[in-house]
Amino acid sequence: MTSQEKLLSQISEGRHIAVGLDPDLKKLPSHLLSEKNPILTFNKEIIDKTYKYAASYKLNFAFFEKYGTEGFSTLFETISYIPKDKLIIADAKRGDIGNTSKMYAESIFNGFNSDAVTLHPYMGYDSVEPFLEFEDKISFILALTSNKGSSDFEKLTLKDGSFLFQQVIKNTLLWNTRNNCGLVFGATNEQELDENISLFGTLPVLLPGIGAQGGSLEKVVSSFKKNGKDNFLINVSRSVIYKDSSRDFAKAAMQEVMALNQEIDRIKG
Amino acid sequence: MTSQEKLLSQISEGRHIAVGLDPDLKKLPSHLLSEKNPILTFNKEIIDKTYKYAASYKLNFAFFEKYGTEGFSTLFETISYIPKDKLIIADAKRGDIGNTSKMYAESIFNGFNSDAVTLHPYMGYDSVEPFLEFEDKISFILALTSNKGSSDFEKLTLKDGSFLFQQVIKNTLLWNTRNNCGLVFGATNEQELDENISLFGTLPVLLPGIGAQGGSLEKVVSSFKKNGKDNFLINVSRSVIYKDSSRDFAKAAMQEVMALNQEIDRIKG
Repeated sequence: MTSQEKLLSQISEGRHIAVGLDPDLKKLPSHLLSEKNPILTFNKEIIDKTYKYAASYKLNFAFFEKYGTEGFSTLFETISYIPKDKLIIADAKRGDIGNTSKMYAESIFNGFNSDAVTLHPYMGYDSVEPFLEFEDKISFILALTSNKGSSDFEKLTLKDGSFLFQQVIKNTLLWNTRNNCGLVFGATNEQELDENISLFGTLPVLLPGIGAQGGSLEKVVSSFKKNGKDNFLINVSRSVIYKDSSRDFAKAAMQEVMALNQEIDRIKG
Repeated sequence: MTSQEKLLSQISEGRHIAVGLDPDLKKLPSHLLSEKNPILTFNKEIIDKTYKYAASYKLNFAFFEKYGTEGFSTLFETISYIPKDKLIIADAKRGDIGNTSKMYAESIFNGFNSDAVTLHPYMGYDSVEPFLEFEDKISFILALTSNKGSSDFEKLTLKDGSFLFQQVIKNTLLWNTRNNCGLVFGATNEQELDENISLFGTLPVLLPGIGAQGGSLEKVVSSFKKNGKDNFLINVSRSVIYKDSSRDFAKAAMQEVMALNQEIDRIKG
């Protein structure tokens, strides 16, 4: 099953949530801290309870790298534990010169067995191309991000009057010859989403920014609906996985994903 | 000793070369392949022979990550082996939302004990700021890179007539309140370097692109000389570490660094 097929299959069954696994020892339920590997136990419980309702899991590489080689073992074991029909997104935000990007692509797609990756566009085509050579995977290019700093460069106006992030979208469409590109578009930029969604073509969209960062699910999903599209993934991390710090944390995460699904269903109508 | 002091000290002693450690099993001298950890042995021999003549070592994280958890152990052991007066650059090209960048910064500066890092500017200030909070470290921001794709976005013209990479330089100067920012500027862009070097202020500059990528040492060093600056590091990787594939590979690398030092001395006059 290609990554594109996995994504389509999940979305056709009405699942749009990408659960972000950002495991932080400081935020884990305290009863887990006596476990041999608290983060792995945490991730497994979250996956066990949420997988029926989630479309995808997004692994934030920083939160594993922080724990050194042990963290990378945990990352590997977490990915291995995720049911194979769910889209596994390596949120690693890579981007380097060609021969280096090739190494990252091999690491992420072969080494870590991820289905998808997030990429910085700044260095241009040849920094992205080694990832695109993996035809059956999905490369989500950062277009407009959910953070405040997205105004610094992404929203700069170019000579032709367009914004830099719009140029990134245009280039991503050109790079999409193998039908394996996607976009990251921050849900905190609701107006920009609404104004630019028609430019996206058939590119799938990963939307961070709902939850802890304050983006509106209602507005975001409405934009997709209005444009007759439903190839989107809503990423939720902290607001789901740390919803509850008791022994029932995973059940609370599950209920949160179910509530989001219901809300999305309602908005899609 | 702060990273800034290390850099100044190396440069004041006439050393400008950052040896790039991009270890690739396919390119290692074949006699090393029977070693228990060929890459670590390779790195140690390169460091042993070159450290008297090099200012810095640049660790390309992709080339370690590719070998999984074992690769990260090797990265850690390699960094530990580098003499403490040399600037250790984590060439990891990070950049993410604040709470994630914080994790990467802790990993790179505390976990891996690096002195400096390379960062993507695309996501703006708050993606960079968690690195800048490490006052005694140096964050090299990608301004204009050495690859062909640098034309795709970095050289786009903005509404005010400036290039995007010039805006990145301007912002980096604003972010430099702790005197711990630097720039990455590809040596393949000799003309742009010459035209923009006066904008750099006191920011140190890391220049990849000499050697395998074809940048001219003569032109690059001349631009710094003409502008009365010498706070630059020339990164060389493949053309030095893979100069020779015999048992004398490390000696050949040393001779290459010595030759580059002489050439830089000559141009500086």
